[in-house]
Amino acid sequence: MEDRVMPPWEEFKALGPSEKARLFQSGDGRVYHALFAQQFGRAFLDALCETATRTRRIAKTKGGRMFLQSLLQDRRAMLYFAQPSTRTFLSFYAACQIVGLHPAEVRDTSTSSELKGESPEDSVRTFSSYFDLIIMRHPEGGFAEKIAWLLSNTEREVPVINAGSGKDQHPTQALLDVYTLQRSFEARGGIEGRTIAFVGDLLRGRTVRSLAQVLTLYPGVRMRFVAPPSLQIGQDILAQLSAAGVEFELTDDFNRVVGEADAIYMTRIQDEWDKPGESRPVDISRFCFTPAHLKVLRPEAILMHPLPRRHEIAVEVDSDPRAMYWRQARNGMWIRVALILNIFAKESEIHQYYADLVR
Amino acid sequence: MEDRVMPPWEEFKALGPSEKARLFQSGDGRVYHALFAQQFGRAFLDALCETATRTRRIAKTKGGRMFLQSLLQDRRAMLYFAQPSTRTFLSFYAACQIVGLHPAEVRDTSTSSELKGESPEDSVRTFSSYFDLIIMRHPEGGFAEKIAWLLSNTEREVPVINAGSGKDQHPTQALLDVYTLQRSFEARGGIEGRTIAFVGDLLRGRTVRSLAQVLTLYPGVRMRFVAPPSLQIGQDILAQLSAAGVEFELTDDFNRVVGEADAIYMTRIQDEWDKPGESRPVDISRFCFTPAHLKVLRPEAILMHPLPRRHEIAVEVDSDPRAMYWRQARNGMWIRVALILNIFAKESEIHQYYADLVR
Amino acid sequence: MEDRVMPPWEEFKALGPSEKARLFQSGDGRVYHALFAQQFGRAFLDALCETATRTRRIAKTKGGRMFLQSLLQDRRAMLYFAQPSTRTFLSFYAACQIVGLHPAEVRDTSTSSELKGESPEDSVRTFSSYFDLIIMRHPEGGFAEKIAWLLSNTEREVPVINAGSGKDQHPTQALLDVYTLQRSFEARGGIEGRTIAFVGDLLRGRTVRSLAQVLTLYPGVRMRFVAPPSLQIGQDILAQLSAAGVEFELTDDFNRVVGEADAIYMTRIQDEWDKPGESRPVDISRFCFTPAHLKVLRPEAILMHPLPRRHEIAVEVDSDPRAMYWRQARNGMWIRVALILNIFAKESEIHQYYADLVR
Repeated sequence: MEDRVMPPWEEFKALGPSEKARLFQSGDGRVYHALFAQQFGRAFLDALCETATRTRRIAKTKGGRMFLQSLLQDRRAMLYFAQPSTRTFLSFYAACQIVGLHPAEVRDTSTSSELKGESPEDSVRTFSSYFDLIIMRHPEGGFAEKIAWLLSNTEREVPVINAGSGKDQHPTQALLDVYTLQRSFEARGGIEGRTIAFVGDLLRGRTVRSLAQVLTLYPGVRMRFVAPPSLQIGQDILAQLSAAGVEFELTDDFNRVVGEADAIYMTRIQDEWDKPGESRPVDISRFCFTPAHLKVLRPEAILMHPLPRRHEIAVEVDSDPRAMYWRQARNGMWIRVALILNIFAKESEIHQYYADLVR
Repeated sequence: MEDRVMPPWEEFKALGPSEKARLFQSGDGRVYHALFAQQFGRAFLDALCETATRTRRIAKTKGGRMFLQSLLQDRRAMLYFAQPSTRTFLSFYAACQIVGLHPAEVRDTSTSSELKGESPEDSVRTFSSYFDLIIMRHPEGGFAEKIAWLLSNTEREVPVINAGSGKDQHPTQALLDVYTLQRSFEARGGIEGRTIAFVGDLLRGRTVRSLAQVLTLYPGVRMRFVAPPSLQIGQDILAQLSAAGVEFELTDDFNRVVGEADAIYMTRIQDEWDKPGESRPVDISRFCFTPAHLKVLRPEAILMHPLPRRHEIAVEVDSDPRAMYWRQARNGMWIRVALILNIFAKESEIHQYYADLVR
Repeated sequence: MEDRVMPPWEEFKALGPSEKARLFQSGDGRVYHALFAQQFGRAFLDALCETATRTRRIAKTKGGRMFLQSLLQDRRAMLYFAQPSTRTFLSFYAACQIVGLHPAEVRDTSTSSELKGESPEDSVRTFSSYFDLIIMRHPEGGFAEKIAWLLSNTEREVPVINAGSGKDQHPTQALLDVYTLQRSFEARGGIEGRTIAFVGDLLRGRTVRSLAQVLTLYPGVRMRFVAPPSLQIGQDILAQLSAAGVEFELTDDFNRVVGEADAIYMTRIQDEWDKPGESRPVDISRFCFTPAHLKVLRPEAILMHPLPRRHEIAVEVDSDPRAMYWRQARNGMWIRVALILNIFAKESEIHQYYADLVR
């Protein structure tokens, strides 16, 4: 990697997102470590979506799939998941397999040396010495950043992808959401100018927070935050939207918004973050998408959900062509493939193969 | 896959095995989903055993092993084991590796999104979107069938192999047992006309139930069910045997049967199905195979056990050439290889390679 | 493998290390099963270090890495870890991936057939029938040896590598420690004649016991055992050192030894072996390596630790070039690669490729 000077930890921690972002990516748009959603600029997002779309086109033939596997077949990835997440885990695991990266996994830290009193930083640093990429999920906010900083100061800096840390950051979820919007509106003028409604637990759902931030990069997007008052989106996000000149509205009138939106992003109540004993008797039945809503939903609108769902979307809705959540999951795998290819500087090989394919 | 119409779930559930079987396989003998033992006809079994035998012949050289790995190297399999089973798990895992299929695993559903209130159907459907094959074990009877039905109604129907669901179905165990019998009697006229004794817990052992059903496809097979009365084989199975014209006998005289049988199939007491508090003080010591029995056993007979064993077969018996249970385990891996190759329509490549090899 | 006669278990158990060693390796320096540190002679160690060093040199290019993966791509390994050990597990897992060996894992025996009353020997024997190599860790001393003996009496003897069993044997740890010393002193006359200090819990740390034994193969090595009296090295080891003519000293004066040693091998208190209720109020603060010690440490000395560490080495020491413990972890991966290549008789292919490379 390029010569760059990583400041001491206390100094580093105090930096703003854009200053940190500069330390984690190179001048030519390559990412060293993928840690937080604000790290990604508009040009990066456009390029990544394009890589994802070309890669899945290449994957339509056996020859193409074998080509993809050859790209990183000489490399190994560690998936370090200290927090349960089968969905994100498998999505990354499959993404590694697609590009040939040999995966290894740590899914249960109780079998690790932490039992013997080792610091988590020491654990990850040791494990990193066997692998060429670390994909990590951790309950502690900022842990992935700490590891990336730590490895930046060693002679063997392997890239880190944050697969979710704490309540705040889950950057590849934001990438897959943007990619889903981009693909859905591609043939009809793009994401710009769309009305996007976020529904449900907007207070604690990190996916909504990240996606709202990222969408400030798309001019003219209008946002509707639809939630019971006690679960509305945080003031910090609204301040960022205002600063970026985004038109937004807070409401609890779900029925009205259904008919207005180009995209509806449903979420579930994140009660795993509830403090023990805390009761949160919020009636969310008014924030559920039912078969009746299908008649009100615009013909070209899309219905998204980061999954897992409970009752926010009725199962009967699944077969409607506007229901996008299963494809959203698959988009997640492909955008992760694209991110890995970016990190290992393999995009040009994709573009070359693609050019030969469509010539 | 071919055009076929999958009926609604309630209607589907009410179908008989042969009608369901038709929905799960194509006209030319390919299986879409491998769900229950009654699905397999005699021609299918003969072809599958032949594929297994040719495949292991091919695997005798490094070139052959590399050829096998090339067959499905562009594909990924998910092993979803919601119920503990290291043996079946590893057998399938190795089978995937042999044909190049990249495996991923979910062995502990407590780390899955089910914790967050997701339905099991949603979980498996999401996971399926990353993979090309699902191999699943589940405590709930009929769950694999439900998933196969569900995926049949989506735009991305990936095949499902049932690796054991509930008390009843474990179809690949039946396949490996048949394959073991077929190989053992191949040079001496086949399975037809053999006397096969089933010994132990015949009430709850799903392997015995499945194998007895499948053996009705082999004319002239005689069956001996050797068990204490409280653990004898179910009337439902006996009714099927009668309907198929099978000659059978129920007895608790193990010593006599040992000398008569061509194959003895030992089983263990399945007390994990006991209800809590239920005591089942059955003396099974009379249903154990001891070194003394080796003298009574016919010289060309074989001794089988689905494993794991407890004390049903003494360790001293293991080195006798008629003890077939370790080879039975290895047969299981190869018949699973053959099943996967059938599902992905790769048998003709096996036959071509084999023809070149023995030319 | 060569014809050899394995004696019955009771007779085998009573053999001494060198007699057992003869049963586990061939005349030409190949190992059938890697079970205990005393198995390895000096010529074997020198050859293994050379293979490891050449292999990592080959791995510096993509072409080299693809060559390494081709060596055992047609083989499968099972990592059976009945005792928690993420570090050793991942190191072996990566080593398998480097040479193309397809790994499968059993990390939690509670999901295994042992639940159903199967003996551990039966479990491992069944699992072994699917794989070409078993890498195992087990809490019971001698278990890996038992399995190797058991498989030697079957028609399908697959090699066993002991990745730690009980309190005593962890032979690949000894290999990586020797390899680290060999690399560090290679350009300055080798390990012979060096002063090596072992510090901390010398009573229970199996790494120190194994390494001290192995170092008797290097003439002129002087040893310093630095520990509180209640945690000093066992008399059995000292007797072996005396018999081998090694000069050694027992002391609790850590500060003095720091300035004298060529290599300092720090260890942590192994209190997981403490009996419940046993209190061991030993003050170990005097046996910790602090930044102040860096000034006393010789300029060309090295600081080792088998990891995980607690407070035995201050984090501030990590960036000193003499701190060797992270590289030690990476050496562990490469020496395991070399061991696997030895077992599968692939060393000559390494040497041929290397010769072409440096020609």
